[in-house]
Amino acid sequence: MAERKSFGSDNHAGVHEAILNAIIEANTGDTIAYGADQWTEQATAELRRQFGAAGDVFLVLNGSGANMVGLSLMLRRHEAVICADSAHINTDECGSAERMLGTKLLQVPAPDGKITPELIAEQLGGRGDDHRAQPGVVAITQTTELGTCYTLEELRKIGDFCHSNRLLLYVDGARLANAAAFLRCSLADLAECADVLSFGATKNGALGAEAVVVMREDLAADAPYLRKQQTQLASKMRYVAAQFLALMEGDLWRRNAAHANEMARRLADGVRVLPGVDLCYPVESNAVFARLDRRHVDALQRDWFFHVWDERTSVVRWMAAFDTTADDVDRFVASVRDVVTDSA
Amino acid sequence: MAERKSFGSDNHAGVHEAILNAIIEANTGDTIAYGADQWTEQATAELRRQFGAAGDVFLVLNGSGANMVGLSLMLRRHEAVICADSAHINTDECGSAERMLGTKLLQVPAPDGKITPELIAEQLGGRGDDHRAQPGVVAITQTTELGTCYTLEELRKIGDFCHSNRLLLYVDGARLANAAAFLRCSLADLAECADVLSFGATKNGALGAEAVVVMREDLAADAPYLRKQQTQLASKMRYVAAQFLALMEGDLWRRNAAHANEMARRLADGVRVLPGVDLCYPVESNAVFARLDRRHVDALQRDWFFHVWDERTSVVRWMAAFDTTADDVDRFVASVRDVVTDSA
Amino acid sequence: MAERKSFGSDNHAGVHEAILNAIIEANTGDTIAYGADQWTEQATAELRRQFGAAGDVFLVLNGSGANMVGLSLMLRRHEAVICADSAHINTDECGSAERMLGTKLLQVPAPDGKITPELIAEQLGGRGDDHRAQPGVVAITQTTELGTCYTLEELRKIGDFCHSNRLLLYVDGARLANAAAFLRCSLADLAECADVLSFGATKNGALGAEAVVVMREDLAADAPYLRKQQTQLASKMRYVAAQFLALMEGDLWRRNAAHANEMARRLADGVRVLPGVDLCYPVESNAVFARLDRRHVDALQRDWFFHVWDERTSVVRWMAAFDTTADDVDRFVASVRDVVTDSA
Amino acid sequence: MAERKSFGSDNHAGVHEAILNAIIEANTGDTIAYGADQWTEQATAELRRQFGAAGDVFLVLNGSGANMVGLSLMLRRHEAVICADSAHINTDECGSAERMLGTKLLQVPAPDGKITPELIAEQLGGRGDDHRAQPGVVAITQTTELGTCYTLEELRKIGDFCHSNRLLLYVDGARLANAAAFLRCSLADLAECADVLSFGATKNGALGAEAVVVMREDLAADAPYLRKQQTQLASKMRYVAAQFLALMEGDLWRRNAAHANEMARRLADGVRVLPGVDLCYPVESNAVFARLDRRHVDALQRDWFFHVWDERTSVVRWMAAFDTTADDVDRFVASVRDVVTDSA
Repeated sequence: MAERKSFGSDNHAGVHEAILNAIIEANTGDTIAYGADQWTEQATAELRRQFGAAGDVFLVLNGSGANMVGLSLMLRRHEAVICADSAHINTDECGSAERMLGTKLLQVPAPDGKITPELIAEQLGGRGDDHRAQPGVVAITQTTELGTCYTLEELRKIGDFCHSNRLLLYVDGARLANAAAFLRCSLADLAECADVLSFGATKNGALGAEAVVVMREDLAADAPYLRKQQTQLASKMRYVAAQFLALMEGDLWRRNAAHANEMARRLADGVRVLPGVDLCYPVESNAVFARLDRRHVDALQRDWFFHVWDERTSVVRWMAAFDTTADDVDRFVASVRDVVTDSA
Repeated sequence: MAERKSFGSDNHAGVHEAILNAIIEANTGDTIAYGADQWTEQATAELRRQFGAAGDVFLVLNGSGANMVGLSLMLRRHEAVICADSAHINTDECGSAERMLGTKLLQVPAPDGKITPELIAEQLGGRGDDHRAQPGVVAITQTTELGTCYTLEELRKIGDFCHSNRLLLYVDGARLANAAAFLRCSLADLAECADVLSFGATKNGALGAEAVVVMREDLAADAPYLRKQQTQLASKMRYVAAQFLALMEGDLWRRNAAHANEMARRLADGVRVLPGVDLCYPVESNAVFARLDRRHVDALQRDWFFHVWDERTSVVRWMAAFDTTADDVDRFVASVRDVVTDSA
Repeated sequence: MAERKSFGSDNHAGVHEAILNAIIEANTGDTIAYGADQWTEQATAELRRQFGAAGDVFLVLNGSGANMVGLSLMLRRHEAVICADSAHINTDECGSAERMLGTKLLQVPAPDGKITPELIAEQLGGRGDDHRAQPGVVAITQTTELGTCYTLEELRKIGDFCHSNRLLLYVDGARLANAAAFLRCSLADLAECADVLSFGATKNGALGAEAVVVMREDLAADAPYLRKQQTQLASKMRYVAAQFLALMEGDLWRRNAAHANEMARRLADGVRVLPGVDLCYPVESNAVFARLDRRHVDALQRDWFFHVWDERTSVVRWMAAFDTTADDVDRFVASVRDVVTDSA
Repeated sequence: MAERKSFGSDNHAGVHEAILNAIIEANTGDTIAYGADQWTEQATAELRRQFGAAGDVFLVLNGSGANMVGLSLMLRRHEAVICADSAHINTDECGSAERMLGTKLLQVPAPDGKITPELIAEQLGGRGDDHRAQPGVVAITQTTELGTCYTLEELRKIGDFCHSNRLLLYVDGARLANAAAFLRCSLADLAECADVLSFGATKNGALGAEAVVVMREDLAADAPYLRKQQTQLASKMRYVAAQFLALMEGDLWRRNAAHANEMARRLADGVRVLPGVDLCYPVESNAVFARLDRRHVDALQRDWFFHVWDERTSVVRWMAAFDTTADDVDRFVASVRDVVTDSA
């Protein structure tokens, strides 16, 4: 990859210095494996506190792993998951939910990545009919795969709808930090609606660390076994926990996310005025989706790395990360300007 | 945990300095995620070379993950895995093989952890009978869960038997380095018999890194998908690859393993002369299994950390690691001497 | 249920007399269980012949079972099935495909129940991307869940498209007999495009009997095991086979299906002229889908049994069976006329 | 197969006349499918009454299906089933439990087919250790695969042990009728210890019908969905129910089983006095296991059909069925006598 900043993914960024230092500092002789260490104890206690989780917190290795462990706590064998058609569990995990959980995904169209009580309600028609997989869990992503962000009010409505309709609510929080930063709220505010959430660190400056946050005590009992069974239990867990400790220290998680959000906003503001660049969704996190002429996309990709999100509609995704600088953004915006102006 | 060295597991050790440095050095700006980076390219190329793998190498996050991805490349839906009753996949992965792969484990008794062509042959009686799960893969562990080591001749015989009986051979190599060190042979020597192996780094000084080595080209095609589907694909893969690069550099993997083996040998030699200490198996890697009076076990555990392997027979397991020192061993042996002499 | 004929399902009908007699005649002392009997040998040989199957034929217990066994012969672990959103495997099998096969269903919108090469092509975008479940099989239903029927030309085009795009083609033939009768073609004509099909007898006058027809020899090897593993192997198989023998005798299968089709056609012709009755799809089998005012539906259901197919659009499904009589139809049509005229 | 009675399996027998008549009588026009018919209502009500089931009864298609549906009601994702090594679910269902349920079978050695609280207790060592699949269900077979029969006292002890150790008890009752006949007790007596049972009709004179009997109300809720999902829901259910109605009428189930038991007893008594014939287990149902010289086995198999149970030990299994006659047995015993005497 070039020396230029990638706008391809927040996964393209490296590890935040404070997190790397925490890993180095945790490297002090022996400790018990598989999570019975002091780092894990502290990290999970702090996460429980910040989320207001009556259940427990389980550290895992990556985002897909967090989603599978989290969902597996909530689903009976005949139950299905209602999710947006654009949900990561539906489109980007190579069929993990179906293979590892054996569950059907009932996909609802969600043009801006957000599902609503109305969309959920439409999936409940077959309840009680033994020919139909029974909806048991609603899974939302916060922030969504399209960079949008459920408001606290929207979350509350979805949570209420779920709980008055015998549905559990799972939140894929691979970018939950970005939502807390955008909404200027606490993690507990975001979690209040949910039964189980994931909380991502990897996309927010960690090396590789995610948490499954179980809000309800009665859902936590199987988690240690299911995490192990699904190959998501790290032996040298202290190094996963240390990453979270560094992120929680002085709210680094929030600062990283807020910065990434700000850079995305700067990028969006820079390009929205350009001819031939249409922003697709409100920019409410660290992602900018834009529609450009295909020739312009090709021209830009000669110098910059980013993904085409939808080939058919020529929509691209530009992601900012904790380490994206204002200068990175400005140079990128200048390139976009050059490209779209040249061809005009 | 106390300041004293743990003999509980090679997972209790920290990360080797060279490996930690490699991680730090890999932290240089952006790179493409999910393994399309130069570190991964180099690490897998080097592993392919050292194993003589005609297929490919896939980096994963932990040992259970490596076992599941590896086995999933080899099994059809109705096929079972023949393994030792003491196999990690049978006893220590919370039923992953059954849950994630849907496969039956046909367990054979293996008093010293090693299975033989004769033991395999006994499981082939139901072939062609559609009421029986059909043996499709033999899984062995090298070194075994009991610290013993298959000789190259034994491996060759098992491999030959498998391949003339329509069976594929999987090697769980969570401690393959220890076997190569013990047998003073190459990784390719160990791999020659096998169709797929895992190669463990975590127990040998890494932070968390394992490889699935596919020896046959025709078995590699599905691996990228199955790794992702089973949640074993790291996004920031360079940090997994960097660990392997450090281990391969100057054969650090072999030096670490040889040292751990030597420390176990020193420990075994120190205690074998003591009254009331019976070594259970030949010490052919970094593990020592011994039978002690239960009172002596309890007394020792007051000062030292290690696991009772079998409560009923009062057998304990003592593991050495890359960072165990001669002094650690000598002090531990002295403690054992004190304990068993006191009580005599 | 009332004495009146049900138009609810072809499953509401009883067993054709000739089939019941065949069961009775098969009840002659002992025979070997699990399919190693002469009835099974004859029935499967005859089915192989009529389908022109180079592979083999496996008798199973019901339609969902046939679909699961059939699909399981064709799918690798990371592969998904492309099917119509209205496909039985998607909507009416309580998530069997996801749970038993671990496979993702990639649903395509098919307003008349039929999918096309174009719809299939749209699902192939993620090929080679390890984040996406990989399309491996296309599953169509003949006749479709909406009573429509793929023409031989349409089948050929789908088959050709599949086979030039590394896709296997599965045909859910729960009502394949109705298609053969409608198209006036042989079973082999219908099967030519396919790799594996099911062939339903239950809805066509049997007590409970379905066949999995494997057209390609290389796909048949695992079938005996997968049928047993999926609990679809009957011990007293002769009674399943005898049902097929009776159906094949003098093409009873075709006569039953042709009659049911004719009755549906008579029903459709009777109601299509009525005000307030809109036929939704071409009537190409034994099913009639019609849109009626909800008040009319309620009124009709007081005297007749049938299902509302879609509550939101007030579409109902009326099915004819092998034993539906012209008089049944005429009386039903008269009732519809009365109901819609009364309220007008 | 020859005109001679098979001693190979109770599955080799045909259908009892009364059961066939019940099927014929059920063939009266239309009825609602999938179990919402009067036959099913009556049959399940009668079964609930005879078993004293507070939960519910679900009719299924075969014995493996009953086992899978039954076990699936009781197991969480990380839970394992403790069963005898000779259990049908372990040896004769092609890995269904592992594939369909994803569960590990913890096999205990049971020389006479019966497991005990002591054998169960030995499997509980890993409780609370997240590396171990957690025992959740004990599965016993009544009568066992070796023809032995748990006494009511033994059942009570196992049930008590299970319920005081957070284990549920499943009874594979493919031959439960034979146990009730042998013990001269009611079905409720046999069921008292259990949480879920299967009740077999097929081996007892039916065409193909089994029941899943759920003793506890709280375990029944998911059963309709899991039966459908596992492809065990018959569309024309009345014909399954009719078989049970015939079996329950005048306790035909008990008479059939008692007769088969008596014939096995007659066979055992006839051969036990012969030189070179060793009975392996107490004859407590319709199965006789005997050890004969391999030459004698071969000679006998020229005229009679039966299975060698264990090739290594030359043990054979002889099964009686509802339609085995005293004359069949006497002629078979005479053949055995001839064979073993000839060669002496």
